[in-house]
This record gives sequence, C-alpha cells and structure tokens, in this order.
Amino acid sequence: MWTVEEHLEDILSTVRPLEPIELRLLDAQGCVLVEDVTVPVPLPPFDNSSMDGYAVRVADVTGASEEFPAVLDVVGDVAAGQEPGLRVGPGQAARIMTGAPLPPGAEAVVPVEWTDGGLGAGPATGMRARSQAPEGASGQVRVFRPAEAGAHVRRAGSDMKAGDRALTAGTVLGPAQLSLLASVGRATARVRPRPRVVVLSTGSELVPPGEPLKPGQIHDSNSFALTAAAREAGAIAYRVGAVADDAETLRTSVDDQLVRADLLVTSGGVSVGAYDVVKEALSGPAPAGGDNGGRGDDGDDGDEEAVAPGVEFRRVAMQPGKPQGFGLIGPDHTPVLTLPGNPVSSFVSFEIFVRPVIRALMGLPEDQLHRPRVRAVLAADEALSSPRGRRQFLRGRAEGDRVTPVGGPGSHLIGALAQANALIVVPEDVTSVEPGADVEVVLLG
Amino acid sequence: MWTVEEHLEDILSTVRPLEPIELRLLDAQGCVLVEDVTVPVPLPPFDNSSMDGYAVRVADVTGASEEFPAVLDVVGDVAAGQEPGLRVGPGQAARIMTGAPLPPGAEAVVPVEWTDGGLGAGPATGMRARSQAPEGASGQVRVFRPAEAGAHVRRAGSDMKAGDRALTAGTVLGPAQLSLLASVGRATARVRPRPRVVVLSTGSELVPPGEPLKPGQIHDSNSFALTAAAREAGAIAYRVGAVADDAETLRTSVDDQLVRADLLVTSGGVSVGAYDVVKEALSGPAPAGGDNGGRGDDGDDGDEEAVAPGVEFRRVAMQPGKPQGFGLIGPDHTPVLTLPGNPVSSFVSFEIFVRPVIRALMGLPEDQLHRPRVRAVLAADEALSSPRGRRQFLRGRAEGDRVTPVGGPGSHLIGALAQANALIVVPEDVTSVEPGADVEVVLLG
Repeated sequence: MWTVEEHLEDILSTVRPLEPIELRLLDAQGCVLVEDVTVPVPLPPFDNSSMDGYAVRVADVTGASEEFPAVLDVVGDVAAGQEPGLRVGPGQAARIMTGAPLPPGAEAVVPVEWTDGGLGAGPATGMRARSQAPEGASGQVRVFRPAEAGAHVRRAGSDMKAGDRALTAGTVLGPAQLSLLASVGRATARVRPRPRVVVLSTGSELVPPGEPLKPGQIHDSNSFALTAAAREAGAIAYRVGAVADDAETLRTSVDDQLVRADLLVTSGGVSVGAYDVVKEALSGPAPAGGDNGGRGDDGDDGDEEAVAPGVEFRRVAMQPGKPQGFGLIGPDHTPVLTLPGNPVSSFVSFEIFVRPVIRALMGLPEDQLHRPRVRAVLAADEALSSPRGRRQFLRGRAEGDRVTPVGGPGSHLIGALAQANALIVVPEDVTSVEPGADVEVVLLG
Repeated sequence: MWTVEEHLEDILSTVRPLEPIELRLLDAQGCVLVEDVTVPVPLPPFDNSSMDGYAVRVADVTGASEEFPAVLDVVGDVAAGQEPGLRVGPGQAARIMTGAPLPPGAEAVVPVEWTDGGLGAGPATGMRARSQAPEGASGQVRVFRPAEAGAHVRRAGSDMKAGDRALTAGTVLGPAQLSLLASVGRATARVRPRPRVVVLSTGSELVPPGEPLKPGQIHDSNSFALTAAAREAGAIAYRVGAVADDAETLRTSVDDQLVRADLLVTSGGVSVGAYDVVKEALSGPAPAGGDNGGRGDDGDDGDEEAVAPGVEFRRVAMQPGKPQGFGLIGPDHTPVLTLPGNPVSSFVSFEIFVRPVIRALMGLPEDQLHRPRVRAVLAADEALSSPRGRRQFLRGRAEGDRVTPVGGPGSHLIGALAQANALIVVPEDVTSVEPGADVEVVLLG
C-alpha cells in the first residue's frame, strides 16, 4: 500500500516539464515563459503627447489665462504615427494628438480643453475631425493656461528603459504579460507548451452517450469528465472513445495515440478482476511503438532502453481511488496514469494525481500545481465515518467557511458529484468526523 | 459625465444573453445550461457489483469463515457489459467483475479478497486475467466470510432515479456536470454559446510586434491584451490587426468583421483629437452591413430599423478610462464597446466593462459577471493621490490582506501593469489615501 504522497511524489519526481518551444503570443497564453525578456528600445521609444492638444514653448504660454490668453500661430498637425514634419518656433504651436511625437522646438503640451481650439471662443471641448475641418491645423489658437516644461509629455523610456528586464523566466503569460511582450516588439515567446493529454476510458460495458443501452451497458462518462478536467487544468486534451476490455485492442489504441500524447490517462481496468484490461495490456512490455512519428530522438536509443518501460500498478491508501498505476511507455517514454474506472474514483484521482502532473509538464511552480486547500467547519447532520488507514475524499459543497457533504461515499454517485465544489479530506488515522469539526477541504474550480 | 455604474448599467441592460444552441458535450464546457435535464432511466440502470468477486446466495455463505469456508461451484464469469447468461443456484457462485450485472439467483457479492479465488489456498489478492487463466471461471471457490443481502451490490437507481432532475437550467457545465450528462445518455446539451468577440485596435502609429519601428511608431499591444482577456473571460476571441486612423478603412473593417461578432471591442480613437477615427466612423449612421452573412432575420427588418444604430461616446468619471463608447451596430445590432487607446486605459476598461458584458452574453448569473472584490490594507510608502470626482483604478499587487501599488497612475505604464494582480479602487470623493488605509481591491485572474 502506497500513501497518497508517496504515489504523487513518485510521479512528480519522474515527469519532466515539456521542452520549450517558440509560440506566437496568443498561442502562448497561459503558458510559462522560459526566458528573461529584456527591453530592446526604450518604452515609449520617443517623447510623446499624453493628451490631444497643442505642442508649445513654455515661454510662449507663461502667465496665460482666460482673460489674457497666449495667442499662437498653428503651424500644423502632428498625428500619432507621423514623424513630425514641422518645428515649433517662438510664438508658434502645433496641434498634437495623444501618442504623437513631440515636435522639435516644443517643450510641453497644453490640452485642447485649456485652449479655444482655434475657434476664437471660450475653452474648447475637443477638436473637430481633421477630415471634416482641415482648417483646424492652421490659423491661430488662444491658450488659457500656462504649462511647465514636460507637461503632458511622456518621456522616452518613462515606462521602461532599454536593457530593463521586462519579464523573468517562470512568468505565466496572461493578458498583461502578452501586452508587454507585444509592446517590446516580441511576436513570439519561448514557453513550455500546453501538454497534449490523451484520455482513454476502458470497459466493455461502455456505450457513447446518445446511443441506446443494451442490458448490462452504461454510458461512458469518464472520458468526458477527464478530458474536460484536463483542459481546465491547462492541457490540450484529446478524448478517445471507450475501448473494450480486450488487451490487444487496448494496446493498439495506445500505440496509435502515443504519437500525439505528452501524457496518457486511462480509466478502468486496473483492479483485481479477471478482465482488468489496462493492467493486462500495460503491465507487460511497453507498446512497441515502431514508427515514433518523428518525435523521438534516434540518437538516444541506448538511453531509452536503459529505462524499464511499462506501468506499475499499485494500491494507494485512499478512498475512492485505491487502484492506481503509473509508468512510462513507448519510444518517447510517455508518462501514463491509469485511474480506476468508477466515475467518482477517476474524478478524485484526476484531481489528486493528474492535475499536478499536467501543471508540472507546463513548468508551473510547485505552489501552482495543486488545487487550493482551506480549513472549513463540517456542516452535517451526523458524523462522517471513514475507513482506518485510508485517506478519504468525500464530495462536499463549500460555502464561506462551512462545507456540507453531498451524497454518500459510494464511488458510483455521479449525481452528487455534479453538485460538489469541494473535496472533504478525512486523514488516514481518522475514522469518524463529528459535525462542527474543523476539516481540510480541497476547493475545485 | 457618466458614473462607472451608469455606463455599466446602460450596457448590461441593453445586451441580451446569446440565443441557446445545442452543443456536443465537450464543446459545451464552461457554458450555461438552459434546460432542466431529467434522468430518463435509473442510474445505474441495473443492479451491479461494486467489487471484483463472486456473486452468491446469502444462505450459502452464512457462517462462513477461514476455518469453515463455504465451498461453492463456480458456474461461470459475469463481466461488465455482458447480460449474464447464467443463473446462480443453491451451492453455486458466479465470478463477477465490478460494474457487471448481478446475475439472477444471486443476492450479494463477496469480494475476491474474502475468498481463495478458486486456488484452494488462503485469501486471494486478486483474479488472474481470464485470457491467461480461463479455468478461473469454473471449478470451486472457498468463501471465508458471510455476506448480507445486497452486500457490494449497487442497486438500480441508487445514484439517480428515472425522473429525477439531474441538472437545472442555469448550471455552468464543468467536468462533473458533463460527466453527469454523459451518464444519463446525453451527447449534447442546450447551452448559451461562448460569445464571439472581435478585437480591433486603431492607430496609425501601431506596428505589429516583430516588425521594426519607424520614427513615431510603436508596437500594437492592445489587440493582444484584449483578445487574451476576452478568452480568459470565456469568449471565443478574434484579433484583428491594428487599423489605421482613417474612417473609411475602419468602417470597412468593422463591416467585414460584424459577420463573426457577437461583440465588437475597439481600442483607441475615442477621445477629443482631430484623428479620433472610431468616434468619426461609428458616431454616424451604423455600417450599412449590406450582406449580413445569412445571420440576420430578414423578417425582422422593421423592428431593426426601430432601434437607432450607432455608438454613443461618453465621458465616464474614472481614471484611467474616461473616454468610452457603447452602441449597437450593423444588421444584427451587434453590441460594440469602444475603449480608449492607452494600454492601461484599455486594460482597465476591459475589466470593468467588457468582461461583465462577455459573461452576460454567456448567460452567467449576476454574481458571476464581475471579478471578485475584497478589502485590503494599503501597503505603500506614501499616500496615494487621486483626482476628485473620478474613480481611480490603480494597479497593485495583492498578497494576503495587503495590497501594494505597482507603477504610477500613468496610463502608458505597461511594464508595471504586467506585475499587477489587482486593481486598487479609489472612490470619486477621495483625493488621498494614506498608507495603512483599508481599500477596495479588484482581484484579477
């Protein structure tokens, strides 16, 4: 019997983060950056206006007021994206737009609301569109307030300087980090890719939803739950339909799928029965693989053979989820986690073992591998009982600092599982938990 | 000047959740169910074994012990997915696998570990694979412990009964809910789809990342940030490259994109300058649309014309993010939100206005539209200042119950934005916040 920690530790110490690749920015969303990114040119690259207004010389607007405005000649427009083709001399102003470069000669920007906008009246509320009123780029403007040097000017490098470190290796790329990468000119980022997880359920009793049931049959649900959960954890997940309890069929399916798998997850067929196909098919020599799809490193053959392939099946001291398996198979030594087939067992096993593996493959740090855990007060009508020597994961509904069990401990209770948002953890040495007790809770989603 | 609440309320009271469609289960992940789903047949559909073991009659194993085992004739195997072709008579047992239907005549299951597994020795640890050892399905088995009626049997309907409500309308479909839908035989679910959000940035100064900058140019970052943020909020997001500050070009781009948009989000061109192209292009009559791509309802023409199209541009009492616009455009009255162009302004505007709209389009309930807000202690060296009459959203880093400002209030500071995980909210009537003060914080991601 392995403890939960021993099994998890064995898996996490074996799997390695995926090799980094260069991805386009939006394909890298949610991925972990593996390089430090430095700023190649100052951000912003040039002094520019932070307002729509007029670029002026400080001396020309000193002491300006509504009563005694400074009257300046407008020598033209500076729009964003233009290299200014003009110079602001004494007694002159250039109309300037937010983000446009400060033209030579100018020292400050006065917002259009501090001027008459060239209309000869009181303070303007804005400019008319250039396409409708081209005359706004010429004539005279009355400025009603003074401006200090640098007023409403964003200096080159005021956001970041060339050589600054924009992002450090290990950063998870969300919207703001992608924005920064784009800002410094990066179209791609070097990241660990999302793992490709192939999900395969086994069981001759399984029929795809939407098809009628014959006697003895049920609908395959695990492959849907596990695929969705793998995606939610950050993976690119592929669902393979349920495979019948035949070792040769399963071996062929696994062989076929390995080419697109960074991780293989199976459900069912791992217990002590006479038809436990996963155990039968994967305990033996690993799938031959044959054509490795061009992904293996042929020069590594010697090393590959040094690692014994195949899956080791174990009993883990937990409920549900006792029968587990882990190993490396195929030419790329793809990690495989074989989960038990009861719906609740496979769901709990995913949360406790598979989710951390997916996140470790992504290169996420230790503190982001697992679901958050909190303490809560058990809100229940009667004591919970739990088998000695097994860590029990009961389904619960956490609200505030309380958690209420939903459904019983039966590992076939899918209805209750769909009402749960948490797992209540009962330690190995506890056999009964009274209402009102303080319990550990794993928060799902 | 509109308040933040007035602008948001105007938008949310105008947009309607998207029309429901039938989606395959894994395509419906994260979507809101719009129908109550009832259980058509009991779950499980038949009495079945919860263990690998032997199906027996209670009377035959009464009083059984290791010293005085019950010795039964094994009449065959019942595997999962099979309709049992056998009957368990007095003095008989059938080998049975987890999930297999309880055969006629049997009343309980004894786990294989409570028997000799047919090997004539002590308690077995499991069964040998049928394919390797077919003799296990015959011969005799010694049973070492009694079993009550129904032991290790999951009764038909013990999870859910026919007619039970499996899920109610309004449920968000995560892994467990998809599992339940699959279990009750549903291959599809009726949900509101994820909104298709088209993101379009404007500005003649914008160059795609990866391309060199000429004088006066910067890299487009908003379209990446907004596209990534829209996805994170739940949308299917399409990034359109930056459009130059030309009204006709923008109108054409918008016309082209409307066919695939449930929501259009623009950045830039909404302030008081002479080149504010979004204002110029979208204030006037809405884009003609012409070919509506087959998505419009032609019979609705009269009604469509009753709603005045076009975007209303507003000043909202916030910093950053003062210039905002909202309206419905095109033949389908597609909602459009026009955000200011400064990177921090567009980012904050997205969080405060666009994210709730995306989630409202998905049909999520009111309490799931917005980011979580908490109170935190301001950890800062000096007081924060904020303009009177404007709600300020400063970037901060929240850790535990403390929040530290990162970067200054400048809306071009992308470097600091990438370090933030929270927005610090300074109310309209507050102009200064002392270190140690209790502040409202919006938690991002």
